[in-house]
Amino acid sequence: MSFAFTVEHREAHSRARVGLLSTPHGTVRTPAFMPVGTQAAVKTLSPHELREVGAEIVLSNTYHLYLRPGAAVVAAAGGLHRFMAWDGPILTDSGGFQVFSLAGLRHVDDDGVRFRSHLDGSEHRFTPELSMEVQRALGADIIMCFDECLEYPADRQRAERSLQRTTAWARRCHALWRSWGDGRQALFGIVQGGVYPDLRREAARALVEMDFPGYAVGGLSVGEPPEVTVQVLEATVPCLPEDRPRYLMGVGSPDLILEAVWRGIDMMDCVLPTRLARHGTVYTSEGKLTVRNAAFARDFRPLDPACDCYACRHFTRAYIRHLLKVNESLGMRLTTIHNLRYLFRFMERLREAVAADRLPAFREEFYRGEGAALGFRPPGGGRQEAPRA
Amino acid sequence: MSFAFTVEHREAHSRARVGLLSTPHGTVRTPAFMPVGTQAAVKTLSPHELREVGAEIVLSNTYHLYLRPGAAVVAAAGGLHRFMAWDGPILTDSGGFQVFSLAGLRHVDDDGVRFRSHLDGSEHRFTPELSMEVQRALGADIIMCFDECLEYPADRQRAERSLQRTTAWARRCHALWRSWGDGRQALFGIVQGGVYPDLRREAARALVEMDFPGYAVGGLSVGEPPEVTVQVLEATVPCLPEDRPRYLMGVGSPDLILEAVWRGIDMMDCVLPTRLARHGTVYTSEGKLTVRNAAFARDFRPLDPACDCYACRHFTRAYIRHLLKVNESLGMRLTTIHNLRYLFRFMERLREAVAADRLPAFREEFYRGEGAALGFRPPGGGRQEAPRA
Repeated sequence: MSFAFTVEHREAHSRARVGLLSTPHGTVRTPAFMPVGTQAAVKTLSPHELREVGAEIVLSNTYHLYLRPGAAVVAAAGGLHRFMAWDGPILTDSGGFQVFSLAGLRHVDDDGVRFRSHLDGSEHRFTPELSMEVQRALGADIIMCFDECLEYPADRQRAERSLQRTTAWARRCHALWRSWGDGRQALFGIVQGGVYPDLRREAARALVEMDFPGYAVGGLSVGEPPEVTVQVLEATVPCLPEDRPRYLMGVGSPDLILEAVWRGIDMMDCVLPTRLARHGTVYTSEGKLTVRNAAFARDFRPLDPACDCYACRHFTRAYIRHLLKVNESLGMRLTTIHNLRYLFRFMERLREAVAADRLPAFREEFYRGEGAALGFRPPGGGRQEAPRA
Repeated sequence: MSFAFTVEHREAHSRARVGLLSTPHGTVRTPAFMPVGTQAAVKTLSPHELREVGAEIVLSNTYHLYLRPGAAVVAAAGGLHRFMAWDGPILTDSGGFQVFSLAGLRHVDDDGVRFRSHLDGSEHRFTPELSMEVQRALGADIIMCFDECLEYPADRQRAERSLQRTTAWARRCHALWRSWGDGRQALFGIVQGGVYPDLRREAARALVEMDFPGYAVGGLSVGEPPEVTVQVLEATVPCLPEDRPRYLMGVGSPDLILEAVWRGIDMMDCVLPTRLARHGTVYTSEGKLTVRNAAFARDFRPLDPACDCYACRHFTRAYIRHLLKVNESLGMRLTTIHNLRYLFRFMERLREAVAADRLPAFREEFYRGEGAALGFRPPGGGRQEAPRA
């Protein structure tokens, strides 16, 4: 099989680890951040720019590709890698999150979800099997189980019933995936269970019993406070096997990445850094900067003097502000390049800290300096780290 | 002085010539096409991409930069080259064309034009002197006289009166430019005179008497048929000195570029190739292709198999169509890169044909093959070339 996950080092003071995730399209250093290429492109970027900023794996959205251009077109192109000219690893989500976000446009039963396209109102139906077949046609290296995404907040009864459905669907996804038997794609199970630690543990145990190549923690980053995210991770991760990658879905702010890595997470994805960038806000070593603001009209410094990205090597805040104000797409491209580069350098520093057993110092420095400048505080108000299991 | 124009070869059968235009920011091979960076950026492209497709000089618009970000901001950045991170030659227009395109929003008198911004309706006034001062602040290598752009069609009396004003304004621009005396920027005069050959000749003679470093033919590409464009060139160019560059404003379709070069034109600019690209239409060696069309949904060939551009080396028609359909800006970037590359390779082939004294054969082949596929016919229905003066 062309998949392998190797934990190379476990940090001495936390659950954090560095590792290598091998896929048929190359190896990813973990902990890894995955930028989101919703429609077979990370907005504003070429695949070569994506590589240049440091991306090693890209996420793409099954729901969007199913609607446009359609899985058959991508399959005819030879799969998503060739379609979008990205030869590195790709992960596709199951479409579940998007379908369940279509408030009022959907109907769920135990077999699947009926929904209306957000584009033209046309009616469609996703089942676990259809999601799997679409993901198979797209051909990503890593594919995800079709799950029910619980709304936040949800009461316990609702969370229990939803989890039953998600577990049953995971079983169907797993069975279909096993039947393919070609080892081209690795299927990840998704732990749901809302904010209830015991449900999370139950969910994890059920999935681990099925034996997936990797496990995701889903249903977070849906409006809950960071303390809850952290609690759920602390309940869930110890139930997951040490030798499989763990993927926290939908998290992409540096503080939560740090907290998640601390608690044993290996992969995350989020639209946040790229969306912020398109709205004109960039991360820098000195804090967040809303470069659209008039204050930067005559600021001829780079976005971040400490940054090595294409935008910072060649362009000024004043020019990028101008581009954003006059709607020249180069502006959003430059801020996107910068924010992703910031985040990939952050991941590099994180991996170095983990490898050198100095994550507590890294964390402390982060919340004192750069993290504080970015407006981040430790979740739970500086509470100490979870003890290592 | 850092400006020089050298004619290196005159084609044996036409007025065409190849030459070198030296500026403080580098040398341009002529005949040269100038892509338009209206707002200090060629839409969708970085300056490095612009260089890669073969651009040697870029045009930017004084009217737009005057409104946003304002000439003072660009001057504070160290000039337009540094502001937009393009270290090659730049030409700015005078703002005249844009101001006169603001139908209903302007009032002209002999001293200048009062107009309302198309952005917020605020009132402004351009005079020849103000246009010159703004262009001086922007700091382009080549700047243009402020002229009145005659509407098409215009009767003879209207054309005569307008030309008087344009000539008077050229005198004021020239006087101010001479007073600067620093040789940092070359000022081009603009020949107007509508469709009237004798007015064009009169205009050219008046400007030549003032002695400009270069001469433009203005007021074309405003809706007149190609035959008229050609007639105006045939009346005007012989009145312009052999040792100065000649710039045909607003022309950028391959057929008219060819006809203009034949008649002795050295430079042109146009938004056409980049605008067509953004609307999903590309030039190829086999004809125009509207890649947005459904016919290309499963066409996995490059835009043009004969093209060496970044888009054609890496992406398929199907993928580019998808990007355009889902409004991913990478799509417009790729079509823009392709169309500009097509045009710059066309310019290379034109210069080679001129240098080798085989422009008639090049022209004939063009209208039989590639040009016919692109939908172009020789202006005047195949009429033979103008005799060399």
